[in-house]
Amino acid sequence: MSEHPKRTLDAADLESGVAYKLLIGLVVPRPIGWIGTRSADGGRNLAPFSFFNAVAWRPPTVLFSTELVTKYKDTLRNVEATEAFTVNVVTEEVAEAMNVTSGTYPPDVDEFEVAGLTAIDADLVPAPMVAEAKANMECRMTRVVRVGEPPSAAVVFGEVLRLHVADAVLDERLRVDPVELKAVGRMAGRGYTTTRDLFFLERPD
Amino acid sequence: MSEHPKRTLDAADLESGVAYKLLIGLVVPRPIGWIGTRSADGGRNLAPFSFFNAVAWRPPTVLFSTELVTKYKDTLRNVEATEAFTVNVVTEEVAEAMNVTSGTYPPDVDEFEVAGLTAIDADLVPAPMVAEAKANMECRMTRVVRVGEPPSAAVVFGEVLRLHVADAVLDERLRVDPVELKAVGRMAGRGYTTTRDLFFLERPD
Repeated sequence: MSEHPKRTLDAADLESGVAYKLLIGLVVPRPIGWIGTRSADGGRNLAPFSFFNAVAWRPPTVLFSTELVTKYKDTLRNVEATEAFTVNVVTEEVAEAMNVTSGTYPPDVDEFEVAGLTAIDADLVPAPMVAEAKANMECRMTRVVRVGEPPSAAVVFGEVLRLHVADAVLDERLRVDPVELKAVGRMAGRGYTTTRDLFFLERPD
Repeated sequence: MSEHPKRTLDAADLESGVAYKLLIGLVVPRPIGWIGTRSADGGRNLAPFSFFNAVAWRPPTVLFSTELVTKYKDTLRNVEATEAFTVNVVTEEVAEAMNVTSGTYPPDVDEFEVAGLTAIDADLVPAPMVAEAKANMECRMTRVVRVGEPPSAAVVFGEVLRLHVADAVLDERLRVDPVELKAVGRMAGRGYTTTRDLFFLERPD
C-alpha cells in the first residue's frame, strides 16, 4: 500500500455542481433503488435513486434521498401522500428500462408505460411494483428527514413489510445468489457497473 | 424483459438473520464508508460500513448506519463524543486492510496499527484519516437517527467539510476517473465487487 499525492478541497469553496461530481464519483458503487409510488389520485410513478441503501434489519429498513430542487419531486409528493413506496431491484436485464424512467416527465405520465414495464399492485401498500424486476420490496414510509438549510434533499426511510424475490436467485436457505441476480450499481455521470467481477475476503473473526 | 416466478416473504415472519441476508443480498452493490473516529480520550478507531451513502450535496452530506446490538459500538460512541468522523474510500489496493479492520476488537485497540495503516489527523475535525486511501472526507456529525423500537441501528449523518483526493483520480474539471479509482463495493457474506466492468447509458433527457 502506498500513499498518494492529494489535492485538498473545501466544500465551502466548491460550486455545488463540483461538490456533486466529487460525491457521486467517490461514493461508488451505489445500489439503485427503483422506487414505485402512487399519487393521491392514483397515478403511477417510477424513478431510480442511487442515494439509496439498507440501514437496519430489525425491522428491515431502507432509505433513499430525493433532491428537493430540480427533479424527482413526484416521488416525494407521492410518498408523503400515501406513506408507501416499493423498491424494485435493478439488474442487467432491466437497466435500459430503468434508464428510461430516469427522465424528467410531467406528474401525469406513467413511467411504467413509457418504459414498457408491467405494473403490479403491491399487496400491503398503495404503490406499484415492476413485474420484470427480480425482486420487489413493499415499504411503509416511517420517516422523512430533510437535509440542508434551506432543505436541499429529503431522506425517506421505509420499513420493508413484504418481499417478492425470484426463485431463481434464492438458494434453499433464502440466500441471494449474486451471479444469478446480476445487480447493477451506479457510478458517476452516465456510468454503471455490473457485479460480475466478484471477489471474496475471509472475515478476520 | 421477462417476468419471474417469485416467492413472497413477509418480514414479520422472517427470523432477523434471514431478513438481514435478504437485505444484504438484494441491496447491492453497496459503497463502503471506512469510518475513522477518535474516542473522548483520543484513541483511534477505524471500521468499514456498507450501510453507507451520500444523500445530499448542498451541503455535501453522507450517512452510515451502525448496528446497536452486536458490533461497531466504538464508532458510534466516538462520533457522539466528538461529533466528528472521516470517510476513507475503499479501493482494490486497500481492500485487504479494510477487511482486517472489520474484525471485532476491544475499544483500546487501534485498528490502524492492526492493519498496518498510516493515520493522519484530519485538519478540521478530531478524527483520523487513512493515508493509504485515495480519498478522505472530513465530516462533522449533524444528526443521529435511531431506527427500530427498541432501536436496532443508528443512522449517523455528516456534513463533508473538506476532501482530500488523490491527484491521479481527478481530471482537470475535478471529475473522478472510475478506472483510476478502482473502488470496491460490498455484496453479501464475504463478497465484494470491483468496479472494473463499467457500462454507460445515455440519459433520456
